[in-house]
Amino acid sequence: MDNFNYHIPTDVYFGKGQISKLGEKISSIAKKVLLVYGGGSIKRTGLYGQIMQQLKQANVTVFELAGVEPNPRIQTVRKGAEICKKEGINAVLAAGGGSTIDCAKMVAAGTCYDGDAWDLVLDPSKIKKALPIAAVLTLAATGSEMDGFAVISDKEKHEKWGTGSDITKPVFAIMDPQYTFSVSKYQTAAGSSDIMSHTFENYFNNTKGAFLQARIAEGILKTIIKYTPVAIEHPDNYEARANLMWASSLAINGLISYGESTAWSVHPMEHELSAFYDITHGAGLALLTPYWMEYVLNEKTIGKFVEYGVNVWGIDSSKEPMVIAKESIAKTRQFFTSIGMPSHLKDLGINDAHFDIMSEKAANGGLDHGFMPLSKEDVKKIFMMAL
Amino acid sequence: MDNFNYHIPTDVYFGKGQISKLGEKISSIAKKVLLVYGGGSIKRTGLYGQIMQQLKQANVTVFELAGVEPNPRIQTVRKGAEICKKEGINAVLAAGGGSTIDCAKMVAAGTCYDGDAWDLVLDPSKIKKALPIAAVLTLAATGSEMDGFAVISDKEKHEKWGTGSDITKPVFAIMDPQYTFSVSKYQTAAGSSDIMSHTFENYFNNTKGAFLQARIAEGILKTIIKYTPVAIEHPDNYEARANLMWASSLAINGLISYGESTAWSVHPMEHELSAFYDITHGAGLALLTPYWMEYVLNEKTIGKFVEYGVNVWGIDSSKEPMVIAKESIAKTRQFFTSIGMPSHLKDLGINDAHFDIMSEKAANGGLDHGFMPLSKEDVKKIFMMAL
Repeated sequence: MDNFNYHIPTDVYFGKGQISKLGEKISSIAKKVLLVYGGGSIKRTGLYGQIMQQLKQANVTVFELAGVEPNPRIQTVRKGAEICKKEGINAVLAAGGGSTIDCAKMVAAGTCYDGDAWDLVLDPSKIKKALPIAAVLTLAATGSEMDGFAVISDKEKHEKWGTGSDITKPVFAIMDPQYTFSVSKYQTAAGSSDIMSHTFENYFNNTKGAFLQARIAEGILKTIIKYTPVAIEHPDNYEARANLMWASSLAINGLISYGESTAWSVHPMEHELSAFYDITHGAGLALLTPYWMEYVLNEKTIGKFVEYGVNVWGIDSSKEPMVIAKESIAKTRQFFTSIGMPSHLKDLGINDAHFDIMSEKAANGGLDHGFMPLSKEDVKKIFMMAL
Repeated sequence: MDNFNYHIPTDVYFGKGQISKLGEKISSIAKKVLLVYGGGSIKRTGLYGQIMQQLKQANVTVFELAGVEPNPRIQTVRKGAEICKKEGINAVLAAGGGSTIDCAKMVAAGTCYDGDAWDLVLDPSKIKKALPIAAVLTLAATGSEMDGFAVISDKEKHEKWGTGSDITKPVFAIMDPQYTFSVSKYQTAAGSSDIMSHTFENYFNNTKGAFLQARIAEGILKTIIKYTPVAIEHPDNYEARANLMWASSLAINGLISYGESTAWSVHPMEHELSAFYDITHGAGLALLTPYWMEYVLNEKTIGKFVEYGVNVWGIDSSKEPMVIAKESIAKTRQFFTSIGMPSHLKDLGINDAHFDIMSEKAANGGLDHGFMPLSKEDVKKIFMMAL
């Protein structure tokens, strides 16, 4: 196990009706707040009204940044930071899923930065200060509600990068699983795929002896496998939505990566897909993951796949290791297909037109430090397999 | 899953050589510190010298409270609070295991309280303020380094009570598994028994649908089962010591109990044993646990035992539920015996002399809300079984 610093300061108010805590909590940190949200689903579900009522009762003045995109754009971040600077706002409140929270984080950091916010996307070490961030979560997926990361795109440049800092960890998050009852079957599946992928990115590592972390990761994977079909079939099943929502936070808040040398592999590849084609992030991850697994499975990596197959999928441990490993990958693909995720790039209208530049950019995203180091040639082969 | 508020603010510096962070971290919160420790083992291991060097370099003035007992006494707490008040101390630094940290917590709270510190033990709601607490951990057991609890005894009254608050959660903890290399085989086994018992107390609950929490609890149990024999056999095995140490924190920092209605059963019973006989807490827990399991196993509770047996011990799930349940209890007893824990009260020189009063006191400790509610008659029967 490697050395680590555990630091998860976000207070979480989890469960039914926890929105009632919002007014008191937010007014203890700010009197002027920027409310950040997406395409307006929070208005349809009534959450917008609940938030406004809480803020009004707590005498908090609200400004708004609406229309955050599914892959949030730097242009929107700039707009938000401008409002905060102009109006002297002292906290940013995100209401939505990961995109909205990511955008809010960079608005909060951008407000406290003199240059252009894109600098902070390209170089996280430039994030030195940020307004306090709070979140009301409406989608179980990215885990952004409890970590410091943000993924921001510049559509014009076909660029999408992850950034973040300890400073951009939300101060508190309100997580009411009921807010996810209205999430569509497809977005539920994509969210679960994102959670699984975060878990895989941490689980498949080369650090020796981080046993406990691996067992917790397996617990998260079993949770997703059990409850995703339930939530798809019964969108208002509270138990399923609650387990998925809590799993989304624990998959990426550090718990399963502390003490390990992790370097993500599938996310950098998927970021190129959604930077070039604006597809749903989770769908891209579900699609690429089994191909990546097949590509990196070899005599050196087989042990981890056997561990995965036996502990997560319950495959008979007396079988040949290679049989277990391949079966674990087959079961992974089967699961993603069963919840309606795509399995070929061409199904998403993606061809090999940009594979060279996409592979090069992905490889520059740290793939040489991954579970199995990947070059741009490797990435291109995986994209080709996935066509 | 029940509603919950997740709040784990302790920063943890985990791993080899993390003591190097102490000076900087402690001086950022205080200039005058009370160093709290036990019987002097930190002097033999050299830790005392390392701490003093860190504090000196950081220009922190040190006062000392030495000699904290294995079951820390209220008299020692009072002494510490007196020093803090007199000297204007502004943080309490514990160096040791759970007893030392528990004592430090109540010293920190007692300093900010006008009455007698025993009030705070009997009524946690009276803890309104405390000096900041920090810990350097030397024993994997109680998890006190990351939670707000403290267990304090009044030997003269044969009383031992748990207390605690969000306010007494340590600000930071330094956890270097190497400090546990010198822990004896017996204390290693007792510490692991304590960790397992915390996990059981949370795991055996009646809340429906806290699936993810149960899987994490099973991961902790598997970690203890795997690494305790290794640490006993090879005291300087870093991987084993690191996994046990991290498991000790995660078993009780809230992670596996959030969202569940848990009420502990075996701890209140064991507290009577160690209040009357001053035995090692973990040994008492290891002894009582299998008897408690046998006593509460019935048609209503069997499901949880089957889950435990299959998921933790790998018992064939196609067997009869009652067979699995009994096998899981047998394996639990076998494990505790294999690591050298006692299995009969008489082996510890305990007879039935005080069973009536002990049973009554234990039953008053909240046993009527447990996994299976227990009366004083039930407790006495369990004590009798354990003779």
